[in-house]
Amino acid sequence: MATSADPGANSTPSPAGDGDAPLRFERVAIIGIGLIGSSLARVLRRDNLAGHIAVCARSHATLDVARALGLADSTTTDPRQVVEGADLVMLCTPLGTYAAIAEAMGPGLRAGCIVSDVGSAKRCVIRDVSPYLADGIHLVPGHPIAGTEHSGPEAGFAELFRDRFCVLTPPPGTDAAAVARVAALWRQAGMAVEILDADHHDLVLAITSHLPHLIAYTIVGTATDLEDHLKAEVIKFSAGGFRDFTRIAASDPVMWRDVFLTNRDAVLEALGRFSEDLAALQRAIRWGEGDRLEDLFRRTREIRRGVIAVRQDRPETDKESGPPAG
Amino acid sequence: MATSADPGANSTPSPAGDGDAPLRFERVAIIGIGLIGSSLARVLRRDNLAGHIAVCARSHATLDVARALGLADSTTTDPRQVVEGADLVMLCTPLGTYAAIAEAMGPGLRAGCIVSDVGSAKRCVIRDVSPYLADGIHLVPGHPIAGTEHSGPEAGFAELFRDRFCVLTPPPGTDAAAVARVAALWRQAGMAVEILDADHHDLVLAITSHLPHLIAYTIVGTATDLEDHLKAEVIKFSAGGFRDFTRIAASDPVMWRDVFLTNRDAVLEALGRFSEDLAALQRAIRWGEGDRLEDLFRRTREIRRGVIAVRQDRPETDKESGPPAG
Repeated sequence: MATSADPGANSTPSPAGDGDAPLRFERVAIIGIGLIGSSLARVLRRDNLAGHIAVCARSHATLDVARALGLADSTTTDPRQVVEGADLVMLCTPLGTYAAIAEAMGPGLRAGCIVSDVGSAKRCVIRDVSPYLADGIHLVPGHPIAGTEHSGPEAGFAELFRDRFCVLTPPPGTDAAAVARVAALWRQAGMAVEILDADHHDLVLAITSHLPHLIAYTIVGTATDLEDHLKAEVIKFSAGGFRDFTRIAASDPVMWRDVFLTNRDAVLEALGRFSEDLAALQRAIRWGEGDRLEDLFRRTREIRRGVIAVRQDRPETDKESGPPAG
Repeated sequence: MATSADPGANSTPSPAGDGDAPLRFERVAIIGIGLIGSSLARVLRRDNLAGHIAVCARSHATLDVARALGLADSTTTDPRQVVEGADLVMLCTPLGTYAAIAEAMGPGLRAGCIVSDVGSAKRCVIRDVSPYLADGIHLVPGHPIAGTEHSGPEAGFAELFRDRFCVLTPPPGTDAAAVARVAALWRQAGMAVEILDADHHDLVLAITSHLPHLIAYTIVGTATDLEDHLKAEVIKFSAGGFRDFTRIAASDPVMWRDVFLTNRDAVLEALGRFSEDLAALQRAIRWGEGDRLEDLFRRTREIRRGVIAVRQDRPETDKESGPPAG
């Protein structure tokens, strides 16, 4: 639990990065060029952090877009090929693909290469990827906590990471220089970097991210199942709160499916706590216990003040809506 | 279910308002001068829609603020006094206060006066207010569906209502001219006005607004109860989704307590559907049913497209953050 920092203080990243860690990579392989992968590629381009960017995706259409956007110096659909000669491999695909990709690319990794990722759960990365990495390959799992509800290479933008937190969860014994290089890269992208134990990360993120997404998907799904004329009105009157849930529930379906499957235990634990609390609130409504409701509604305001205090209340700068004013 | 309109088409309100309905009131009494009441007062001022604005609030401090902001021509803490001579009385207090206010103000209402409100539930308004209204007083319950998480007279702004929907739920037999005047007022504020049955309104809003708020309060409450060091991390890493819930859960506690108490049956019905759906999803996660998860996550995107199609995806213009770009 080291390296805490205020991400707001970080908005002018120092070119020196993380102490002595060199910022520039010879050859970066990005596997998966969606919202996060393409945003990272834009940072690498903007700050000239990679001698060569090799991009791997399943579809040629996606690779064409990546090339057209100037994000790839070379492209391939083959994970084995993309990692050749790379000193940094960044996995930016849904978590459920990691094991197969690791198996495919493993034999192609050069000695000293750093393998990192951007997935929303971290224990499973160590479980699924490390068996395929030879000695001398450094696994540094990472999670830049930033995103929008948009998907695909066109949705990315370099500013996505600015003033957000990035969590790294290197297993005990990981090469410190490798960790420092990955940390320096994310700091250069504008993030505050924290080192956490993978299990601890997974529990915290189950509450801050996975459970909110699960609930948003559920409530929008409940509305989806309504009779048609009710549904039209639900959409029309969505400004009362529902709208925010529809935005969250428009996030990438495959990515989120894999988050829930790979971080199952922590999500079920968080869901259990939530369900108990919801049942208690339901009872308070049924029995007209106004004091109990008001008491909770007052306490939750404190958490909001905390979010504002660490400057995480600002919505993501979004390509489509432009930077938020003020 | 009449008078449907695209609120986006309404952004240049016609001065003629609702057909022949006169837009200007002689004397408007606003009871409760929080976010909504003060935003309405700003509209009345901006467009010169009231000869006199009389404001009632419980506390002298609030009334001082209202006067300092130029929103009140006269102020009082007495509901009986504020309505004297008014041709429009607008209730802008929490729903739980309506019965007592109606009882107090009832004898002071002049013949032909319109009594309206801005509460988030509507059946209870008819139940709580109409017993205290003499013949010749017109009750036109209303719900401008707009808001931010901020409270108090300073939080208001005239643009709050622009391009949003307002629902009116006049009981059968309500004077049509009175309904037209209230509709014209909200159209002038920039809203699209719909007439609905009160029970129907309450069911739809239970899904679009009350349930989302209940769930946001619950999940933020679940986080509030965490061990302290976990709580600090939950706040720090809130950008992953939780942040949006903390904003919703920062809304006015008393107002929302009263919404849940007064719209109890519809909220419990919506909550029942939600809980069933959540349990099904929980089961799918436990048993690793990825297809089932992905299928739901794809379907929910359609609802988001609907919200965007009726132009309700734009967040509220907020005083603090300024108008959203783009």
